[in-house]
Amino acid sequence: MILVKGGVTTAIGFHASGVKAGIKKSGNKDLALLYSEVPAIAAASFTKNRFQASPVKISKIHLKNKLHQAIVVNSGNANCANGKKGDKDALLMASVTAAALGLDKKEVLVASTGIIGKYLPVNKIKNNIPALLRGLSKDGVGFAQSIMTTDTRKKELAVKIKLGRSTVTIGGACKGVGMLHPDMLLERHATMLCFITTDCSISRKLLNDSLGEAIEDSFNMVSVDGDMSTNDSCFVLANGLAGNKKIVSKGKDYKIFTEALKYLAKELAKMLAEDGEGATKFIEIKVKGAGNAAEAKSVARKVSTSNLLKCAIFGGDPNWGRVAAAAGASGVDFDPDKTDIYLGDVLVLSNGASVKGHDTKRTAKYFRQKEVHITLNLKAGKAEARAWTCDFSKEYVEINSEYST
Amino acid sequence: MILVKGGVTTAIGFHASGVKAGIKKSGNKDLALLYSEVPAIAAASFTKNRFQASPVKISKIHLKNKLHQAIVVNSGNANCANGKKGDKDALLMASVTAAALGLDKKEVLVASTGIIGKYLPVNKIKNNIPALLRGLSKDGVGFAQSIMTTDTRKKELAVKIKLGRSTVTIGGACKGVGMLHPDMLLERHATMLCFITTDCSISRKLLNDSLGEAIEDSFNMVSVDGDMSTNDSCFVLANGLAGNKKIVSKGKDYKIFTEALKYLAKELAKMLAEDGEGATKFIEIKVKGAGNAAEAKSVARKVSTSNLLKCAIFGGDPNWGRVAAAAGASGVDFDPDKTDIYLGDVLVLSNGASVKGHDTKRTAKYFRQKEVHITLNLKAGKAEARAWTCDFSKEYVEINSEYST
Repeated sequence: MILVKGGVTTAIGFHASGVKAGIKKSGNKDLALLYSEVPAIAAASFTKNRFQASPVKISKIHLKNKLHQAIVVNSGNANCANGKKGDKDALLMASVTAAALGLDKKEVLVASTGIIGKYLPVNKIKNNIPALLRGLSKDGVGFAQSIMTTDTRKKELAVKIKLGRSTVTIGGACKGVGMLHPDMLLERHATMLCFITTDCSISRKLLNDSLGEAIEDSFNMVSVDGDMSTNDSCFVLANGLAGNKKIVSKGKDYKIFTEALKYLAKELAKMLAEDGEGATKFIEIKVKGAGNAAEAKSVARKVSTSNLLKCAIFGGDPNWGRVAAAAGASGVDFDPDKTDIYLGDVLVLSNGASVKGHDTKRTAKYFRQKEVHITLNLKAGKAEARAWTCDFSKEYVEINSEYST
Repeated sequence: MILVKGGVTTAIGFHASGVKAGIKKSGNKDLALLYSEVPAIAAASFTKNRFQASPVKISKIHLKNKLHQAIVVNSGNANCANGKKGDKDALLMASVTAAALGLDKKEVLVASTGIIGKYLPVNKIKNNIPALLRGLSKDGVGFAQSIMTTDTRKKELAVKIKLGRSTVTIGGACKGVGMLHPDMLLERHATMLCFITTDCSISRKLLNDSLGEAIEDSFNMVSVDGDMSTNDSCFVLANGLAGNKKIVSKGKDYKIFTEALKYLAKELAKMLAEDGEGATKFIEIKVKGAGNAAEAKSVARKVSTSNLLKCAIFGGDPNWGRVAAAAGASGVDFDPDKTDIYLGDVLVLSNGASVKGHDTKRTAKYFRQKEVHITLNLKAGKAEARAWTCDFSKEYVEINSEYST
């Protein structure tokens, strides 16, 4: 696997664009289109939130169709909590895009992100579909920017793998820096938005399985604020243009493909944490020695969502007691008296007891770095998990105290 | 029931004191004692956190004793994550206090609050037990102050009820403004600390049941930051000195007593939210029309812990979409398309759809008030619940970015 500079248009046959439709008050780009030259198969994963945004509902219906060729996305408005009108508006976004591209509406998927509870300015969207089509290009300029909300930078990445003699490309772009605590279920219910494209030839069932494996250890392990969105969505389109022997079983090619997809998803997830609203630091929580994978994830996830710990890291204060308290609140039944905690490589808690005379100057210095790694060893088994987050700054509060006004 | 000015020493036979033992860097009072003239029965509830502070472990052991006469408490140090040494230190606090009072160590309960992972300065505590005893008085000066950490004010309250011809008093004091998200289990596992005293004559079993009923709708429904402490503890001592006919069944007297205890616990819980770290506003989330009480509580609790909503309220931004998103993330299976949301008395979401033309000037004005009430109606049944929290300010981040240093 090699990492290449790229994004959603790096794989063969994918084109993208982004325009300013006037949905965002800022006047920045807010409408985007992703298009495959040939029909592609799709897999997707959506939020488990009971309040599901209208684009999530419509995309779920359209996913019943076997082939898809486009995804239309707006930022600046979540089109959520808008009742039947919201559903109609999401469907209209898809229909108008489909008509312009000469496709059936069910071949178009739809996604939105932004404020909840405001009706979508559908006319602005309709009026800008022609410009969106004209803008479609192989360099996909603007796509990754158009899907941003409070993101400070675009997030995209691509990898290339060899399957037999064919080179297969997988590329992706994502957004999401607040209301970020995805918990997604495959084809059921995710405002992280992620768009992945690949020219791999693979069966629909296996693409779905592969995405399922990839999101569990990536997007579902990243959190900025613990607030699960109504709009989280992760889409993969696979158009088969790489010409590889179609993947129809969980053999070697499936494994290579899935490893690459996992890598891509994990790197994109980390970019989300790095660019978290108001973030000044990137934090990785590693849990090892857990009884099983689910327990490892629960503990890592719980520690990564501790407001107190995240404030301490913002302030460069190595207050690791908050790591212990958060782990203990995870609901996982581990033995505190066996637990070790490391800040970087400094052991601060050993078998449940504070390590006397540990180097507090070193931990204080470590906590002032841009990247903080915290490790817990539960000594109950061999399972491991990692969760990613960012520190909790005054700027986070500022950003989110004036979002709608 | 009448509300009276008072606290832990208002009930007959209770004395209290508080001194400066030098545990806190600030030099404020940090060691407190609560004492009953005669042996009392005790009921208690502790945190569910897997990391349990040493005083919690020791108090649990001592609760097996049938009678108790004192509770010794320190602030400034949680005595948690200190291994066997921590357990020994907590036991020593109880033993030294017991010896000075002429009691058995098992008649003394113990509680701590403060930083996790630092060893308790036991000599400072030992040396100040005599002063603590000398300070014992009927006005209990200093008790409520001595248990404070980042609290800005003491929290105490008392009520009087009539049981037959006897007047029974219940009084309480509590602390806790951060790492505050109690989830307590009776006699099992709660850094909210709460001390309640009563001169009621009641059986141990019924005191326990009554406390169980009281904490569910009070302390277990308050959250400042979603971080569950290792030290949360709620104690009730009942010494029987009111001379009422002993409560031995769940009849009329039990109901009157329990209603009063519930009221006291609820009012103390609200004081915790009002004085939350960095709080500028008090927030009440009311859920009605839920399928059952557990679901009502889950939704109310989840909304009350939304960082995004709490930042919006700090900024006076009526961004109610965050209420919907948080409710939907509660894990409760309600119908979003039937859900109503009110900000104060303004209906903003009706049957899952944003109410067009609702008075946004009024909601913006409402969100600038010191007290914000948000109501959700799920229209699934008749169950109701209330949860309390405070807004999320830059000051919260400031307080918690420099706690240990």
